[in-house]
Amino acid sequence: MTKGQKGSLVEFQDVVRKRRMVRSFEDRPVDSQTVELILENAIRAPSAGFSQGWAFMLLDQPEDVQRFWDVNWPDRETDSPWPQLFNAPVIIVPLSHKQAYLDRYAESDKGWTDKAESRWPVPYWHIDTAFAAQNMLLTIVDHDLGALFFGLFDVPKFREGFGVPEEYEPIGAIAIGHPAQKDRKSGSLKRGRRKLDEVLHRGRWQPRGDSGGI
Amino acid sequence: MTKGQKGSLVEFQDVVRKRRMVRSFEDRPVDSQTVELILENAIRAPSAGFSQGWAFMLLDQPEDVQRFWDVNWPDRETDSPWPQLFNAPVIIVPLSHKQAYLDRYAESDKGWTDKAESRWPVPYWHIDTAFAAQNMLLTIVDHDLGALFFGLFDVPKFREGFGVPEEYEPIGAIAIGHPAQKDRKSGSLKRGRRKLDEVLHRGRWQPRGDSGGI
Repeated sequence: MTKGQKGSLVEFQDVVRKRRMVRSFEDRPVDSQTVELILENAIRAPSAGFSQGWAFMLLDQPEDVQRFWDVNWPDRETDSPWPQLFNAPVIIVPLSHKQAYLDRYAESDKGWTDKAESRWPVPYWHIDTAFAAQNMLLTIVDHDLGALFFGLFDVPKFREGFGVPEEYEPIGAIAIGHPAQKDRKSGSLKRGRRKLDEVLHRGRWQPRGDSGGI
Repeated sequence: MTKGQKGSLVEFQDVVRKRRMVRSFEDRPVDSQTVELILENAIRAPSAGFSQGWAFMLLDQPEDVQRFWDVNWPDRETDSPWPQLFNAPVIIVPLSHKQAYLDRYAESDKGWTDKAESRWPVPYWHIDTAFAAQNMLLTIVDHDLGALFFGLFDVPKFREGFGVPEEYEPIGAIAIGHPAQKDRKSGSLKRGRRKLDEVLHRGRWQPRGDSGGI
């Protein structure tokens, strides 16, 4: 499938600029070919040693989506400021697979035969899976859809509800749908976007007031 | 600065499709406005609670880039299969700031006043910083440049060399430049890309041979 077939043709920079989290969706389905492309773009993300230690759970049947919310947000009827969030017809859960990285880096070209997790200063399995998630978030915008990426904070319950083995870790979930005309923005936006100058360090670390007093 | 001013005008899907890691660069500079846009796109990534707990170190002066390699890869002259990697005129190091998340989620609208890291099933500070990094990797392609994202495995040495405080964690580094005509591909690519069917689970977890025997 080429992008042209899907109708929209959006320049990369516009996609990046337009992307924002959407929390209110229309109650109608998303084209299944588009969902397929979202997932195909996920697996085009880079990964350390081409480990591709990730998995994606796709929930696109109403009963599965319902079950997802029942498991993760049982009191949503009274508890959520975004009732139209639950209209989203599709949820994708990206999961990271640490063992795939430990195994990959024990191969002869890498040679970490002890498979020690302590060799990894940061969890590249989560990072690579996040790369894949960001590809999905942008692809969603490219198709005039909206998404909310949100954390799953009761992972054991999610595992139990969806049969996910211990070695796969959900890094969050992406609710996908057609954005409703009116969305209630996240209160967090009041914080404002930090300017580039506040977070940029040229040449070496530039001590600032906000970096732990250093 | 709009994208149009930069000359190229690439459709989103083409950017995703074209992106690959580049390990050989021409020995010439990158336009500084493009570098600025790469960084501006980084901070357009989403973040939990709009915490924006990230920082970016930009090395775009030859002596700083040289110092980066001296610190991170002192024996590169004899050790590297990619001698033209070191031509890259720009390196960006994305760093994640856990404390910003713990502080943000202790605010009244979130209420985790204990600031306990154990509340976080996965490190969203790394995940959000990875979102920012993926935005950069794609922006680089959109501008006909190439990049290598690679892990920094001796973090203490990097901290020392660039004055980075303990509470900021580099999630890797991105070498950026004009791709050389001939690049030597990573041996990892021989593994092949995993097909979507191998990593996709519809409705619930689908037991497979490759998921730890489950």
